[in-house]
Amino acid sequence: MTDRTESDDHIWGINTVAAMLDSSPDRIHKLYLLRGRRNPRLQHLYARAREAGVPISPVPRDALDRLADGPHQGVVAAVGAVVGSDWHRAVEAAFERNETPLLVVLDHLHDPHNLGAIARSAAAFGAHSLVVPRHRSAVPGGAAAKAAAGALATLPIARVPNLARSLEAMKQSGLWIVGTAVEAGTLPWQIDLTVPLALVIGSEQKGLRPITTAACDLCVTVPLKGMMESLNASVAAGIMLYEIIRQRRSAAI
Amino acid sequence: MTDRTESDDHIWGINTVAAMLDSSPDRIHKLYLLRGRRNPRLQHLYARAREAGVPISPVPRDALDRLADGPHQGVVAAVGAVVGSDWHRAVEAAFERNETPLLVVLDHLHDPHNLGAIARSAAAFGAHSLVVPRHRSAVPGGAAAKAAAGALATLPIARVPNLARSLEAMKQSGLWIVGTAVEAGTLPWQIDLTVPLALVIGSEQKGLRPITTAACDLCVTVPLKGMMESLNASVAAGIMLYEIIRQRRSAAI
Repeated sequence: MTDRTESDDHIWGINTVAAMLDSSPDRIHKLYLLRGRRNPRLQHLYARAREAGVPISPVPRDALDRLADGPHQGVVAAVGAVVGSDWHRAVEAAFERNETPLLVVLDHLHDPHNLGAIARSAAAFGAHSLVVPRHRSAVPGGAAAKAAAGALATLPIARVPNLARSLEAMKQSGLWIVGTAVEAGTLPWQIDLTVPLALVIGSEQKGLRPITTAACDLCVTVPLKGMMESLNASVAAGIMLYEIIRQRRSAAI
Repeated sequence: MTDRTESDDHIWGINTVAAMLDSSPDRIHKLYLLRGRRNPRLQHLYARAREAGVPISPVPRDALDRLADGPHQGVVAAVGAVVGSDWHRAVEAAFERNETPLLVVLDHLHDPHNLGAIARSAAAFGAHSLVVPRHRSAVPGGAAAKAAAGALATLPIARVPNLARSLEAMKQSGLWIVGTAVEAGTLPWQIDLTVPLALVIGSEQKGLRPITTAACDLCVTVPLKGMMESLNASVAAGIMLYEIIRQRRSAAI
């Protein structure tokens, strides 16, 4: 009854689920509601979901605890990830809203847990889209959805056939392409990250491929204590997203 | 032959393993060497390990690939974590070397993967010790060791019986206690992190406990896009460690 389908992500909490029911009820594949709910707000959600034709499963509290990674308030929704959307559109929409575009590009990341964790950070810091290669890359589903903690339901994901060509197209759209290199890159706080950006994250084992590095305008390296030290790919991505937001908020004052 | 014991971590690479053989051969529980090694540097490692009485296992390349999370150059060592060491000593040693002390304190973190990932970041950014409560907390071993990617072999871990009391003792030692709060804390770049510090990380579900928050000198919050957004605990820890090192390196220029 509480199966997780491979391409679904879960969102939880009354306000979050109510917002999704309002904006895109067709993306909710199933609503899990606390069995015997007496809470009027949960009853209201139940009525709205029925009206929208969303399948509803009454489940015990421990099933909701397993599906959610945070306080669920008695409701969890299984939501299909927004896969296949166009990064061009995300960039245009950002420009139209007077926001500085920020794309997060993954260069053949293999670990779905890392993909999900990066999606979570990207959504948390307000990135406009995640861009992943169509082939030889972790896919958004299963372990990725678990680590994404709801992010795959809101962050658009563009899957592209040729990453180097997409990076060239991003440059044409007015984005700076900033790669994250394990060594020999510029210190993150010494370059201007307040401009429209595509942040490129390399694979866990090999970092950026040479063809990807060649497509970058410049590379940054998070300085570590020693040559033998390294960061988890999702931690490195979170740090760079933080540095971008730190600079943008400091500049806006 | 390539069993991982619960409290062991793995380190790899010729230089890394050679350094550990020099400094603390008794902490190496087993040395895994590429079978049929003809490389003179591997032969030299073999001779030194035999001399030091370290058990040696010749294994095929795919076994080494499974044990290591990076380029192993034909050698992996199983190393016991440095558990039970005294954080006082780590702080004193840092002061003696004219380094600014940095402790990472975990407030009842439950996920061993997060504990390992935070240890990896702490070691990478040069923290002097990890401090974890003795009870109701993830322990350094198994999944933690895998995520730590070698860090548990070099970063001392102090397990303390009463976290609030230890935080008080840290204040007496001249450290500022900085907690990471999910909301309502100061922006990380608006406080001075160049002073001697203990950085306190809360649990995945509940953040810092009230008794821990009360023991902090102040709390910081990484600013996110919306109230519903959150970061993985290990990503949040990595971001704060980066911010500390960014400020310290910028101040040192």
